[in-house]
Amino acid sequence: MSVPEAERLARVGLSLLTEPGDARVAAVVADVGAQVLYDNVLAQRDDSEVRRDARSRLEGCDPVRQLEQATRAGLRFVVPGDTEWPTQLDDLALAPPLQQRGGAPLGLWVRGPLRLDGLGSSVAVVGSRSATTYGADVAAQVAAVVARSGAPVVSGAAFGIDQAAHRGALGGGGTTIAVLACGADRVYPQAHRELIEHLAREGAVVSESPPGGAPTRVRFLSRNRIIAALTSGTVVVEAAVRSGALNTANWATRLNRHLMGVPGPITSAPSQGVHQLLRSGAATLVTSGQEVLEMVAPAGQHVLEEPRGRERSRDRLSMSDQQVLDAVPVSRAVGADSVARTAGMALLKVGPALDRLRAGGYVEREEDGWRLAALAQE
Amino acid sequence: MSVPEAERLARVGLSLLTEPGDARVAAVVADVGAQVLYDNVLAQRDDSEVRRDARSRLEGCDPVRQLEQATRAGLRFVVPGDTEWPTQLDDLALAPPLQQRGGAPLGLWVRGPLRLDGLGSSVAVVGSRSATTYGADVAAQVAAVVARSGAPVVSGAAFGIDQAAHRGALGGGGTTIAVLACGADRVYPQAHRELIEHLAREGAVVSESPPGGAPTRVRFLSRNRIIAALTSGTVVVEAAVRSGALNTANWATRLNRHLMGVPGPITSAPSQGVHQLLRSGAATLVTSGQEVLEMVAPAGQHVLEEPRGRERSRDRLSMSDQQVLDAVPVSRAVGADSVARTAGMALLKVGPALDRLRAGGYVEREEDGWRLAALAQE
Repeated sequence: MSVPEAERLARVGLSLLTEPGDARVAAVVADVGAQVLYDNVLAQRDDSEVRRDARSRLEGCDPVRQLEQATRAGLRFVVPGDTEWPTQLDDLALAPPLQQRGGAPLGLWVRGPLRLDGLGSSVAVVGSRSATTYGADVAAQVAAVVARSGAPVVSGAAFGIDQAAHRGALGGGGTTIAVLACGADRVYPQAHRELIEHLAREGAVVSESPPGGAPTRVRFLSRNRIIAALTSGTVVVEAAVRSGALNTANWATRLNRHLMGVPGPITSAPSQGVHQLLRSGAATLVTSGQEVLEMVAPAGQHVLEEPRGRERSRDRLSMSDQQVLDAVPVSRAVGADSVARTAGMALLKVGPALDRLRAGGYVEREEDGWRLAALAQE
Repeated sequence: MSVPEAERLARVGLSLLTEPGDARVAAVVADVGAQVLYDNVLAQRDDSEVRRDARSRLEGCDPVRQLEQATRAGLRFVVPGDTEWPTQLDDLALAPPLQQRGGAPLGLWVRGPLRLDGLGSSVAVVGSRSATTYGADVAAQVAAVVARSGAPVVSGAAFGIDQAAHRGALGGGGTTIAVLACGADRVYPQAHRELIEHLAREGAVVSESPPGGAPTRVRFLSRNRIIAALTSGTVVVEAAVRSGALNTANWATRLNRHLMGVPGPITSAPSQGVHQLLRSGAATLVTSGQEVLEMVAPAGQHVLEEPRGRERSRDRLSMSDQQVLDAVPVSRAVGADSVARTAGMALLKVGPALDRLRAGGYVEREEDGWRLAALAQE
């Protein structure tokens, strides 16, 4: 199956004329198709709010030239029907809009060798731009474990948690995808030029906005739904109560994706939003990349051992042997009858218990009775 | 209703002869009554494991003298039927044993002016002895808020979280109860002499073990069930994966009490056990004393406002006005048609939007067009 050129060019045109993630545009495209809407905009036919808005950008709109320029700049425009189209994005057509953003994107502008089909159990790791060192370390660790398992890590290339997630994934030897609010040919923030260029060489830099598009605030909201939709699950590492990461979290929930949150100190403002997600039951608490994989991977693929702590040797004793051991003094030896009395246990049970404890090296028998062995005094 | 002297003395006797929290003893007492069991032990009648064990301590057992000595030392022995008896402890008779500990206590030895009836929505604040400064600070804060509301804070007087909880409750001007594994006349750990004496003067120091009883390891397990049973809810602040606080948590669950956990950094071992409780769904995540009160207080008494974060003025704008605002440049003025094109919005909508934004102080109109006002540049 290949996408007709007219369909692709109509989608390029609409990508130039409309705002990314405009839920009204997505609804019309889902209803009549991209070509009909694009033709209607060009023909200045009838009148509708969507078309009126689109016409404000008509001057100089040239999809053929745009596509050529993009190709020369190393970008491709992946649309529904392409074999590379990540079909999980189609779920967006079924989710209700949020802040008037929603619907499947017209297409994705992609830079980089990583193909968007077959992302498998990819994981979004998102969070606050003003992350703490704790949050950044944790994001990097989680991303490294996910990436090492073969699942791509998706994030937004922003300061803080995003940056740490990409860095962690690269450190884990895995692939990672940046979804930008500006055009995929641009670099935002400027300080992340090296990171974003690296991702474009090794993984993928993706945007719903056309090349050259500016990173406006509203586009971050649209972008967040792409991050949530591309992935099997979203991990929120740190997010203050008004963080944009909570918008991504909201999309993950709308899309029936796994939503996970990493807790932090309750005294830390950047953890407050995550704690709200956990308290409301929207997100599942995770404390490691392994726990993330356990949630997003196909059943049975990542089975976790709960951390159990070092077992102390006396924990292996029966409760009544522990009771006898508790009754044997450290500093001086006493008779079995005294042990029995202290333990509150019949002498005929205490004798065999003391023998067992001696065999285990817990107590020692001296001339004048029983005392604790060195081992048991730790 | 007053408790017959023979009943009280039988319970004192059994308290001296048996181990606190021995589930077998509690089962027999629930079945035949304390007096029958005590008489049978004294009479060396028949034979049973419970009676054989109890007889190991018969020598010198004198309940009348014990009670007199205790009274002189400022202790009282509160038993079922006393008006001071905290009837919530009766729930223990219905819960299954854990590590052979269980059942309602024979009575509680109490030192201090606080009466144990009418503890209302008291809260246990428990956790690791090797607490971090984070954990200790949080325990003290939570306890202070709970205590200030009038609810007693119950803990175990141990190092770490326990100590911080008592200290926080006292700092909050509230009452606090220590439940000890040793006799209520003893001080353990020694370093907490001042704290425990203070609690005995202002609140209550409570134990199931008779006066003089040693703090053996098994008695800590028995003690934990009393802490959970006395209170409406247990808050675990920090607990490593093998912490005794998880034993208290287990009892809270067995007793259908509210179980709450305070999260911490996932990199902190003392938070690992709490995170397990939260992940398993056994405990509810709480981040403040107010959230604790909301859980344990009668419905509607403590209604919380979710923390909402500072609302930025531009968050109050409609989505399309935000889109127009995003399209107005900072550094130079541009015409409304340019704004419309950048926003991807029809000019006839952009004009009124710019007027609204000017009225709100977000944009300024200059001779050659529109530019961002200082306010909007934050």
